[in-house]
Amino acid sequence: MKLHFLGTGAGVPSKPRNVTSIMLKLLDENNEMWMFDCGEATQQQILRTTLKPRKVSKIFISHLHGDHIFGLPGFLSSRNFQGGEDELTVYGPKGIKRYIETCLSVTGTRLAYPLSIIELDQEGIAVENKQFKVTYKTLQHVIPCYGFRIEEADQPGQLLVDKALAAGVPKGPMLGQLKNGQSVELADGRILDGKDFIGPDKEGKIVTILGDTRYCSQAIDLARDAHALVHEATFEAGEEEMARRYGHSTAAQAAQVAQAAGAKQVFLTHISARYVGKKAKQLQKDAQLIFPNSQLVHDFDEYIIE
Amino acid sequence: MKLHFLGTGAGVPSKPRNVTSIMLKLLDENNEMWMFDCGEATQQQILRTTLKPRKVSKIFISHLHGDHIFGLPGFLSSRNFQGGEDELTVYGPKGIKRYIETCLSVTGTRLAYPLSIIELDQEGIAVENKQFKVTYKTLQHVIPCYGFRIEEADQPGQLLVDKALAAGVPKGPMLGQLKNGQSVELADGRILDGKDFIGPDKEGKIVTILGDTRYCSQAIDLARDAHALVHEATFEAGEEEMARRYGHSTAAQAAQVAQAAGAKQVFLTHISARYVGKKAKQLQKDAQLIFPNSQLVHDFDEYIIE
Repeated sequence: MKLHFLGTGAGVPSKPRNVTSIMLKLLDENNEMWMFDCGEATQQQILRTTLKPRKVSKIFISHLHGDHIFGLPGFLSSRNFQGGEDELTVYGPKGIKRYIETCLSVTGTRLAYPLSIIELDQEGIAVENKQFKVTYKTLQHVIPCYGFRIEEADQPGQLLVDKALAAGVPKGPMLGQLKNGQSVELADGRILDGKDFIGPDKEGKIVTILGDTRYCSQAIDLARDAHALVHEATFEAGEEEMARRYGHSTAAQAAQVAQAAGAKQVFLTHISARYVGKKAKQLQKDAQLIFPNSQLVHDFDEYIIE
Repeated sequence: MKLHFLGTGAGVPSKPRNVTSIMLKLLDENNEMWMFDCGEATQQQILRTTLKPRKVSKIFISHLHGDHIFGLPGFLSSRNFQGGEDELTVYGPKGIKRYIETCLSVTGTRLAYPLSIIELDQEGIAVENKQFKVTYKTLQHVIPCYGFRIEEADQPGQLLVDKALAAGVPKGPMLGQLKNGQSVELADGRILDGKDFIGPDKEGKIVTILGDTRYCSQAIDLARDAHALVHEATFEAGEEEMARRYGHSTAAQAAQVAQAAGAKQVFLTHISARYVGKKAKQLQKDAQLIFPNSQLVHDFDEYIIE
């Protein structure tokens, strides 16, 4: 999986940081992309990348503040013009349906693709299929706000081709049978078990993407053993009282969540416009004092999750 | 008055052209700005100018297509954060109130300034005060869509200071009395009439800003003798049938409106993303063949209306 940060600012857009949107590219798993939040001008940010709106199959909305949803109607409409015909599902808090439907109805927008809108509960499972499971919990913000945990299924190991050839398996359909775990009988009468020719399972990755939140146990639960945690860091260390009052976190608190959860790395986003240059770098330093693998992100940053 | 083009594209944003928004700066007349349409990312475009959102006192919405209104909720919300406390009035078609109120209510946005939303009729007068009169008519688009005519009142002439001093008027309050058109008595007994010391009235300017439209008589009425006409030019000459079907104009038709109305200049905007480089310049040539004072505009262009 690969994370693309499209907007990394908080509250209002600034020249260096647009409001929140994150794209998760599912890469090898399938050809889809999932979007997390869609602040105003997300479609304009996408124009500056190679990402294709029509490949976005799911959009997860953390909460209904404008800096997380005001780009949604424009994105949904423009996806029409860009050859988007595949179904799109939007997951979000109660109210997201009224918001989207009003925007589409007032503007007389008829989408050329099927759109499903799913309003989530307090916590639960949003998506579950052979490849992915997405669970969510309500965090602690000033309005209902979700965090999402995306778990990829383990992938079966690859066929050990060299080992099979060395054992005398001929090139051809017999290799395919071994790959499927079946047994095969060679011309000399030996019987080989497919299980002996398959490498170890590839561990599925866990990515946790949280909306705006105070330091809270739900965040830690969602981030447990995650390969990547995306956590807001609206304020600097020392501003915990301000953060608490407005339902946000400091960079240090984001690092504490990563540490408590045993996550492998944390990406700090949703950065207040007050932090630029050295002051922004200080946020990363605040976090690294607690959790070394902390990374402050910027608009258009990309990270492969390994 | 001064026109700032913030977004000059049609339908969907492209890298060179954002979706529609135009700012009219009232300059000497007062310290206000009026916005015409507010496509998505208008607030982000404003960040790249010296314009101040808090100085926007009126927003006129031509019609309810997304590329003309999806920036409105974000602009209204962000104006809060940028010290906007003065009243703001939005004028637009029926439905604009439901759209704005739903967006503000779903996001729990409480504005720190008074917001009035006025839904317009088929045609009429939107604003009328000592300085300005704004009339509007319904154009011919695929949904109800307005054009606006902004007429500035003539401004009284300036005091001819040099003439007054040469006539022996002493510097001081007597000059102010002359400026107000009063008579004054000099120390030597001569009586001077203020009217003789005031220059000619300064002619008020007329600016016409139209929403999306086919070539139509309402456009010509609104643009009559305008110092500046802003007209859409979604298609090139020869695409009249396509333009008609989608309720738009060609650049040549925009020029025909300017010519028929006796306007002094026409600004061509709302340019389809298909026209870039030479193809965009061709739009201007199409128009200039009919009306020489035709100008194709780009995002961030500014024009003083003289």
